[in-house]
Amino acid sequence: MKNHVRVLIWGFGAMGSGMAEMLLDKKGVEIIGVCDIHPERAGRSMFDILGRSAGGHGDVTVNGNIDELLTPGCAEVALLATDSFTAKALPKILKLVENGLNVISTAEEMAYPRAQAPDLADAIDTAARKHGVSVLGTGINPGLIMDVLVTLLTGACRSVTAIEAKRINSLSPFGPAVMEEQGVGLSPEAFTEGVKEGGVAGHVGFSESVRMIADGIGWELDGPVEQTQNAIVSRVARKTPFIEIGPGQVAGCDQRGIGRVDGEAKIRMVHPQQIEPESEGTETGDFITITGTPNITMTIRPEIPGGIGTIAMCVNMIPQVINASPGLKTMLDLPIPRAVMGDMRDRIEVTS
Amino acid sequence: MKNHVRVLIWGFGAMGSGMAEMLLDKKGVEIIGVCDIHPERAGRSMFDILGRSAGGHGDVTVNGNIDELLTPGCAEVALLATDSFTAKALPKILKLVENGLNVISTAEEMAYPRAQAPDLADAIDTAARKHGVSVLGTGINPGLIMDVLVTLLTGACRSVTAIEAKRINSLSPFGPAVMEEQGVGLSPEAFTEGVKEGGVAGHVGFSESVRMIADGIGWELDGPVEQTQNAIVSRVARKTPFIEIGPGQVAGCDQRGIGRVDGEAKIRMVHPQQIEPESEGTETGDFITITGTPNITMTIRPEIPGGIGTIAMCVNMIPQVINASPGLKTMLDLPIPRAVMGDMRDRIEVTS
Repeated sequence: MKNHVRVLIWGFGAMGSGMAEMLLDKKGVEIIGVCDIHPERAGRSMFDILGRSAGGHGDVTVNGNIDELLTPGCAEVALLATDSFTAKALPKILKLVENGLNVISTAEEMAYPRAQAPDLADAIDTAARKHGVSVLGTGINPGLIMDVLVTLLTGACRSVTAIEAKRINSLSPFGPAVMEEQGVGLSPEAFTEGVKEGGVAGHVGFSESVRMIADGIGWELDGPVEQTQNAIVSRVARKTPFIEIGPGQVAGCDQRGIGRVDGEAKIRMVHPQQIEPESEGTETGDFITITGTPNITMTIRPEIPGGIGTIAMCVNMIPQVINASPGLKTMLDLPIPRAVMGDMRDRIEVTS
Repeated sequence: MKNHVRVLIWGFGAMGSGMAEMLLDKKGVEIIGVCDIHPERAGRSMFDILGRSAGGHGDVTVNGNIDELLTPGCAEVALLATDSFTAKALPKILKLVENGLNVISTAEEMAYPRAQAPDLADAIDTAARKHGVSVLGTGINPGLIMDVLVTLLTGACRSVTAIEAKRINSLSPFGPAVMEEQGVGLSPEAFTEGVKEGGVAGHVGFSESVRMIADGIGWELDGPVEQTQNAIVSRVARKTPFIEIGPGQVAGCDQRGIGRVDGEAKIRMVHPQQIEPESEGTETGDFITITGTPNITMTIRPEIPGGIGTIAMCVNMIPQVINASPGLKTMLDLPIPRAVMGDMRDRIEVTS
């Protein structure tokens, strides 16, 4: 019998703890360590935090100090759920790689780090090759909806002239951090100011998604992705477990992006995110329109939810990342994602 | 400058000639030979058959004898568009492999030959490894809609309990051979007889699609896929360029399949194909329903057309097949399909 696939989780917020929950229900895999610096989590039992019994799994105490957890080859793969930006994730990725761990990162920019940080991408690639491991950034978006799924559908096309990816989703399940990032609850003026000052970050990932599509199908972008962020101002009162807004306040952020090729807007991204979209009749969903031969019009209704989707993508890609040749990988390089419903060990290729 | 990617096309019917058309519009690739035994095509110029001028491309005379065309390493890849069944494609695949060509086959059973012909799959795998090439079967269905796309979407799921893939499409663009395979124009009685005797073959690919999904996500099927074929009896007159039917005659074939896991119908395939579906208000499309966490409901409307889709999938997978490690591959093993809009040479990895 093969050994269990050993997983280290770094970052035990909503994403990291969700991955732990998912892994605990899978066969052939075990969580060998959890790192999280948050004072409410460090030092506590993982099962205590998750509110579930250990079952057959050994107890894992969340450790705030990665250096106490990390020994060479202590796990086959690390799930890194701590950052959105490549630059911030970089030292953590390198530390994991240097200890011989394959890495899957939730950092949105890591979905295609060549888009905005080619030097850092090179550094990661070099380190990963040196240590014989692979590194992947993935998630629901970037990682699937507005890039991988789009690119995959172009595979049925003789030619493509334009692409639009639209994701209309609800922010209602999310907590205070996301409300702040998206400017929910602000006045329209404060939203505009927040966008200017950077406090309203909006969605991170258009640069990565657009570049992934362009590189994937062989279009050369004229320059960086052009992005706009506009307030979705509510006409009605809206309420979630975390926030309550009145008419005239900002319910969310309508973010758009354009990738130009030879001066033409070839790739369009449309991503309005808001709390309680149905309160003004907005139907949520994921929509892909490919103009080409043939035209393709795809709809997923409602949208694939962001949180669970990102958790699933990261866990489900574990076998592909372990099996990959060394280096920095993207979703374009690896076999297609898929649910892991059997024993995870059956997916691991034995290298001779 | 790298050399052009050299392609041999074997079979110059609707699929093979469509691939030639597509390739002639691409950069960095050239057609070095075409084999077709049909007396209307053998001996003629490829451009003459296609009804287009050669442009910058050298002329290619269709040859009825593969042995006159094939020399070791004469092309990087062969597109084999001659058969539906693995057993019939096998000797052709082996001949190509033995001459050092990577192979992409349109044979439906070749999309997942382990499903129905594991011994032949082994033979292909052994030969491909021996000669350092790879072999892939692909197309729109099997190859994308009812298997690869389904499997990919499960990647966003924490768990999956049931899957339904439904493809409702029009047979109107197809010619006499497809009409015969699908029983179009028969009386309901003759249709039933044809299904029994094998004259009405229906769609080939359910066994392959279901097994691909099951193996992909890690479900073990109880046994072979259970299949039914029922006549779609028209209530109205329907007409295409190739056939005309009256009320009471068969407009197409409603084919269904079930893959059971632990006694449960976990994977359902629904594939009614008919001429002029809109004449009785049937809306065509591709529909995927995944029951799980989360549920996913995907629609592509209208359906991705079968002919152009298969042509595109085969051509677009050329780089992945050339880059693959030696052996028999499936769409589960290779990086995602994508349109080739740039120079195909840029997609070919240089092995050192």
